[in-house]
Amino acid sequence: MPNQASYSDPGLQALLTPRSIAVVGASDHIHKIGGRPIHYMLTHGYDGRLYPVNPQRETIQGLPAYPSLAALPDTPELAIIVVAGDAAVDAVRECARLGVAAAIVIASGFGEAGEAGKRQQDEMVRVARHAGLRLVGPNSQGLANFGSGAIASFSTMFIEVPPQDGPVAVISQSGGMGAMVYGLLRSQGIGVRHVHATGNQADITVSDLALAVAHDDDVRLILLYLETLGDPATLARAAAVARQRGVPVVAVKAGRTGAGQRAAASHTGAIANEDRAVDAFFARHGIWRADDAHALARCAPLYLRDWSPGANGLVVVSNSGASCVMAADAAEHCELAMATLAPATRAGLAQRLPGFAATANPVDVTAALLTNSGLFGDVLPVIADDPAADMVLLDIPVAGMGYDIERFATDAARFADSAGKPIAVAAWQSGVVEPFRRRGVPVFASANEALPALAQWRQHRHMLNRLTDTVPAVPEPLNDFAEPPRTATLSEADSLARLAAAGVPVVRHRLCRTAAEAIAAWQDIGGPVAIKACAAAVPHKSEHGLVELGCDGADAVATAFDRQLAGLARLGVDPEGVIVAAMTRGQRECLIGARWDPVFGAVLIVGDGGKYVEVLRDTAALLAPCREDDVASALARLRIWPILQGVRGEPRVDIAALCRAAVAVGQLVHDAAGRIRSVDLNPVMASADAVVVVDGLMEVVEGS
Amino acid sequence: MPNQASYSDPGLQALLTPRSIAVVGASDHIHKIGGRPIHYMLTHGYDGRLYPVNPQRETIQGLPAYPSLAALPDTPELAIIVVAGDAAVDAVRECARLGVAAAIVIASGFGEAGEAGKRQQDEMVRVARHAGLRLVGPNSQGLANFGSGAIASFSTMFIEVPPQDGPVAVISQSGGMGAMVYGLLRSQGIGVRHVHATGNQADITVSDLALAVAHDDDVRLILLYLETLGDPATLARAAAVARQRGVPVVAVKAGRTGAGQRAAASHTGAIANEDRAVDAFFARHGIWRADDAHALARCAPLYLRDWSPGANGLVVVSNSGASCVMAADAAEHCELAMATLAPATRAGLAQRLPGFAATANPVDVTAALLTNSGLFGDVLPVIADDPAADMVLLDIPVAGMGYDIERFATDAARFADSAGKPIAVAAWQSGVVEPFRRRGVPVFASANEALPALAQWRQHRHMLNRLTDTVPAVPEPLNDFAEPPRTATLSEADSLARLAAAGVPVVRHRLCRTAAEAIAAWQDIGGPVAIKACAAAVPHKSEHGLVELGCDGADAVATAFDRQLAGLARLGVDPEGVIVAAMTRGQRECLIGARWDPVFGAVLIVGDGGKYVEVLRDTAALLAPCREDDVASALARLRIWPILQGVRGEPRVDIAALCRAAVAVGQLVHDAAGRIRSVDLNPVMASADAVVVVDGLMEVVEGS
Repeated sequence: MPNQASYSDPGLQALLTPRSIAVVGASDHIHKIGGRPIHYMLTHGYDGRLYPVNPQRETIQGLPAYPSLAALPDTPELAIIVVAGDAAVDAVRECARLGVAAAIVIASGFGEAGEAGKRQQDEMVRVARHAGLRLVGPNSQGLANFGSGAIASFSTMFIEVPPQDGPVAVISQSGGMGAMVYGLLRSQGIGVRHVHATGNQADITVSDLALAVAHDDDVRLILLYLETLGDPATLARAAAVARQRGVPVVAVKAGRTGAGQRAAASHTGAIANEDRAVDAFFARHGIWRADDAHALARCAPLYLRDWSPGANGLVVVSNSGASCVMAADAAEHCELAMATLAPATRAGLAQRLPGFAATANPVDVTAALLTNSGLFGDVLPVIADDPAADMVLLDIPVAGMGYDIERFATDAARFADSAGKPIAVAAWQSGVVEPFRRRGVPVFASANEALPALAQWRQHRHMLNRLTDTVPAVPEPLNDFAEPPRTATLSEADSLARLAAAGVPVVRHRLCRTAAEAIAAWQDIGGPVAIKACAAAVPHKSEHGLVELGCDGADAVATAFDRQLAGLARLGVDPEGVIVAAMTRGQRECLIGARWDPVFGAVLIVGDGGKYVEVLRDTAALLAPCREDDVASALARLRIWPILQGVRGEPRVDIAALCRAAVAVGQLVHDAAGRIRSVDLNPVMASADAVVVVDGLMEVVEGS
Repeated sequence: MPNQASYSDPGLQALLTPRSIAVVGASDHIHKIGGRPIHYMLTHGYDGRLYPVNPQRETIQGLPAYPSLAALPDTPELAIIVVAGDAAVDAVRECARLGVAAAIVIASGFGEAGEAGKRQQDEMVRVARHAGLRLVGPNSQGLANFGSGAIASFSTMFIEVPPQDGPVAVISQSGGMGAMVYGLLRSQGIGVRHVHATGNQADITVSDLALAVAHDDDVRLILLYLETLGDPATLARAAAVARQRGVPVVAVKAGRTGAGQRAAASHTGAIANEDRAVDAFFARHGIWRADDAHALARCAPLYLRDWSPGANGLVVVSNSGASCVMAADAAEHCELAMATLAPATRAGLAQRLPGFAATANPVDVTAALLTNSGLFGDVLPVIADDPAADMVLLDIPVAGMGYDIERFATDAARFADSAGKPIAVAAWQSGVVEPFRRRGVPVFASANEALPALAQWRQHRHMLNRLTDTVPAVPEPLNDFAEPPRTATLSEADSLARLAAAGVPVVRHRLCRTAAEAIAAWQDIGGPVAIKACAAAVPHKSEHGLVELGCDGADAVATAFDRQLAGLARLGVDPEGVIVAAMTRGQRECLIGARWDPVFGAVLIVGDGGKYVEVLRDTAALLAPCREDDVASALARLRIWPILQGVRGEPRVDIAALCRAAVAVGQLVHDAAGRIRSVDLNPVMASADAVVVVDGLMEVVEGS
C-alpha cells in the first residue's frame, strides 16, 4: 500500500485507508449495492479486515457474515451502511456507540427528499458529531481508494472500465459525475487513485476530502465536482496544500445559473452560491473552474506531465494545410500567439521538408508524410530548439492505413520527453490516437479542444506559480448571523464619511443645515457645486429630482438649498441636511462596489460605471482583502481597460489610485465582518491625476 | 443509379455522373494515387466505362490500358489527371483537343507553390476555358459520388471508414477536411453521397459544386469547407436552391484571423475575405457558419430528421441529478429556456417516477433507472404531450452493465418518431451511444455539445423558414476595377449633401463663405450652433481644433467663423467654407457605416457610436441592400440594445428611424456599385423623436 497517510484526521484516515471495514446490509450478490463493495475489495486487493453484516446469512461472498455490528470480533474503523431509512439511522447510532471512526451512508431519501428525510439526516449528524464519528453521505455512492484497495463504493463504472491506481483524485458530490470523470480518465489510459462521492454532505464535504487527498504524496492532480460550497476555508486549505506540492486543482461548480441552482437544490439539497463570488474564490486560491465532467478530464494528460509553462508562442505542425489554417484561427481565439520562427529554424525546416511545404508557422509537412514517415521526427527537434516555440500542436486530421503512426508517436514522445515544452496532438481516428496515448503524449479530438487545453494548462500553471509566494489568508467562518440581520441604508453624508475614514478618496463636500452654511461651503470649494438633499430614507436622489448640478453664486446656492429641503419635505422625509459638493469631471465614470457574502466574505466589484452599469455589465469581481495588483489584473480583463490606459490622445487615468481606492473599500467591508452589507460607489470619477468617489451608498446591519 | 441529374451544366454533370472516365497516369497498385480511383470504382459499382491510360502497361487492375487519351475507343466525359507538372498541362491540352467535358488535376505544385507553378496553372485554365473544358484542381484529392459510384478520388479515408450512400454532401477546398468530415459522419452511421475536394480552384469552386449537389434530389444536407470565397453569387444561388428544397447548408470558412488568412494563402493560395462580411453573407443566405470539421459533422443527425422547429422550451431528462444541474446551466448559456411543465405533466410524471425523483424540469429519474428500465419510456410520452416542451435532452452520463440500454434507445426512438419534437441524447460510453445511433436518435458526447447543437438546429431552421419567402437578390459580379482605384475623401458638406439626397436624415446646417452668411445661418437655426471648418483635405477636424460647439450670438458666431478660416489657413488648406450646424443631443450616439467590399458589395455596419467605437466594438455587420427589420435584428444582438429600447426611465429611441437611415446608407453604397468606397457616420444622434447624422465622412473613387 503506497504511503498516503500524512493527513492526520483519524476519521478521514478511516475513510481513505481503513484497516477494517464493516458492510451493514451486506449481500452475496456482487451486483447488489450491498455486494459490490465487498466484491471490489476482494478483487482489487484490499488487505484490511472485511466484515459483512447480515443477520440472514452465515457467509457472504466467501467471508463469514455477522448478525450485527455489535457481534463483530473487533470495532471496524469504517462502516459502509447500505440499509435505508430508520435502519440507516439505527446503524449510525450503533457505530457511534461502538466507537467506529467513520461511516458511509449509501441510501438516498434523506435531506434531498423533503422534511421527514431531513429530520432523519439531522439525527444521524447529531449522533455522529456527539461521538466523534465522521459521516459520508447519506445519498452517497461511496468512496474508492485504488491505492489502498479500500473500495467502499458500489459504482458500476469500476466494472465498465477496469481500475488502475494512478496519480489522479476525483472527488464529487455526485456519484454519477465522479464515476463519469473516472471513466473518461481511464478511457484515456490515465490511472486514478481516489474516486469519492459525498452525496448530501451532511458531515464530510468535497472540501474535506480534497484536503485529505492533497496530503497523498502520490496524487498529482485533484478534480472536483461541487454543487454547493459551504466550507470555503477547508477548500482553501486543500488548495494551499496542493499548491505547495505543485498539484493543480480543477473544479466544476454546477449551479451557475438560476435554473441550475434550482436543479441543484433538488439534487443534493445544495444551497446556492453567488456565481461571481465562486469565480473570485477559485481565482484567488488557484483553482481552475471547468464547465463539465469532460472538461475536468480533458486537461489531465497535460497536467500530469512536468513541463514548465513558458510564454504563449504556439507552433502548429500538420499534414493538412486546412488544419494549419483552422489551428491558426483557433489559436487567436484562445489568445495563443503563433510563434514567429527564427530564420535558422525556417532554414532547418526547409532542408527537411519537400519544396512545396510551408516552413513558416504553421508548418505544413503536406501529404508527403504518406511517403516519408520521418517528417514529424525531422521537424520537431528543429522546432524544439527555437526559443520562440513555447508549445507545439501536432494536428493530424487524416491518417490511417499507409501511415506509420507508431513512428509519428515515437517522434512526438521524444519531443515530449526531451524538449521540456508541451506538445499536444489533435487526432480523432482511434487508430491514430492510441499510439500517442500509450506513450503519454496528450491527445485531443481537435485543435479546438487541444488549444484551449494548452491555454488552460499554461495559464493555470502560471497562476499557481504566482500564488506560491503569496498564499492568501484563509477566510474565517464568516456567517455570524443566525438569521438574516435587519439592515439600513446610510445617508450619503454618513457613507462618504465612513469611506473617507477608511482612506477612500471622496469628493470635496460639506453637509449643510442652513443656506448660510451652503453658501460658505460653495465659497470654500470655489466654483460651481453640486447640491443634493441628504437623508438616509432617500438613497436614490436623482429619481426624485434631489440633485442639482453646476450651482454657482450665492443666490443660486441658497435657492437650490431651499429647493432641496422642500423636495424632502414633499416626500415627507426628515432632512439630515443638504450636501454641497465640488463638481468633478473625470475621463471615465467607474464603479467600485463591495458586498458581504455569507460564505465568501467581502466580494469586491470594480469596473465601468455610469448610469448603464446594469446594462453594459463591464465589471469584475474579486475577493477582499486583496492587493492593488489583483485589482489591476481584474480591470485588465474588462472592455474599458484600453480607455483607462488612454486612447485617442487621452492620458492614462490614475489606475494605481483606482486600485488603491478599491483595495480600501474591500478592506473596509472585510474588516466590518458582516456589519457592512454592501457599498455601491458610482460614479467614481477617474482621470489622469485623481480618482474621486462622487456618490456613495452603504448598507449596514442596523445599529452598526 | 439514383436520379441526381437535374442540374444541367454538362461539365458539372460530367464531374458528378460521368458515363465514361479516363485515368491519366493509371496504376496497377491500388494504394497509389493512380490506382486508388480505379480500385474504388471497381469495388463500389461504378457502371460507366473506365479507361486506364498508361503507356507502360497492357492492363491495369484487370482493365485494358491505353497508351494515351487519343488512343481511347471513345472520348471520355471525365479525365482524372494523376501525372504531375508539365505532363499534367499536356494532358489538359489533350483533353481540350479531344472534347473531354471535365478534368480533375490531382497533382500539387501549381498555384499554391510559387510563380512557375502559377504560370502552369494559368495555362491549364486558359486552354480549358477556350475549349469549354471544366477543370477541378489542381492540388485536388478528387471527387467522389457514392450514388453513381464515380469515385474520382484517392482519399485513404474511404478504406478507413467504408462508404455508404446517403443524404449528405461534403464539398471542401481541402481534401483532408473533406475526408475528415466524411469519416466523422460515417462514424456516426450517417450515409454520405458526395465527397468533393476542389484544391486550388483554378476553375471549379466549392460554390459550383454546392450548386450542382443542391440539385441532387437525394441530398438533404450540404456541408462546406472554404478557405476563400471569390464567387459569392454562385454560392448564393446554391443556397437558394437548397433552401427551396429545405436542405440546410453549413459551412466552415477558415481564415477568420490574420494568422489563419496567412496560412490559407500558403495552403490553397486563398485570397483573404473580410471575416465580418463573410458572416453577413452567410447570414443573408441562410448558411450556418461552423468552426471546424467536427462542428460540421456534429449537427448532421439533427438536420437529417424532419422535425420542425418550435419555441425554445427545453426539457432535460436524466438519471443523474448532477447532469440535470449542469444541463440547466448549459441551456441558459446557449439561450435555451428550461420549459415550465404544466401541472398535469408534473402529476403524470409523479405517477410514473419514484417518490424522491424530481418532477419539475429538469426531470431526474434517479438511479431507480437501474431497477426500472422503463422509466424513460414512461416519462417521455408525458413530456411529449406538454405544449411547453419544444425539445428534449436525454442525458445519460453513466450507464452500462445492468442497464437495459436497448430499451432506453427504443423508447427514445419512439419519441423521436412520433412526438414531432427533437430529442438529443448526451452519452459518451460507446455501449450506450450505439443503440441510439442505430435507431437514428441524435447522440452527442455531452450536454455541452448537445444543447448548442439543438440551439443551432432550431435557429438555423427558423432562419431558413424566414428566408423562404424573401429570397434576397443574388449579388452581381462586383469588382469592376482592374486595379484598386484612386480614392478621395469628400468634404463634410459634400458628404452631408449626398447623404441628404439619399434620404438620410442629416443635421440642419449650412455651408457659409462669409461671417455674414454664418450669422444668418445661426439666426435661421435659432439657438446655439456648432461651427466647423470645411475642407476635404481635413477629414478629422476635431484633432485640429476645427470644431467649436455651442456658439450663440452674432459676435460669437462671427468670431468663431474667422477662427475656423484662420485655422485652415494655418494648415495651408484652401477652405470650402465653414459649416454652421444645429447643436443636437441624442439619447445615444450611434454609428452607421458602410464599406464597399470587392467580393460582397456593400457591407453595412450599425451600432454604438461615440469616440470609443474602436475600443468598445459594439457594432454589427450586414449586407446591403437590406430591409429595416434586418437592421433591427442586427441591432438586437448588440450590448446597447436595451439602452436603445429605453432603460432607467429613458424613452425608447426611434429605432425605426435608425433602421431607415441605415437602410438608406446601405442602398446608397450599393447603388454606387463601387464608386463610393466607404461611409462613416459617427455620431448619429438617436433619441425618442429623431435620428440625425451629426458628422459624416465619405470616401469615393476619384471623379465620382
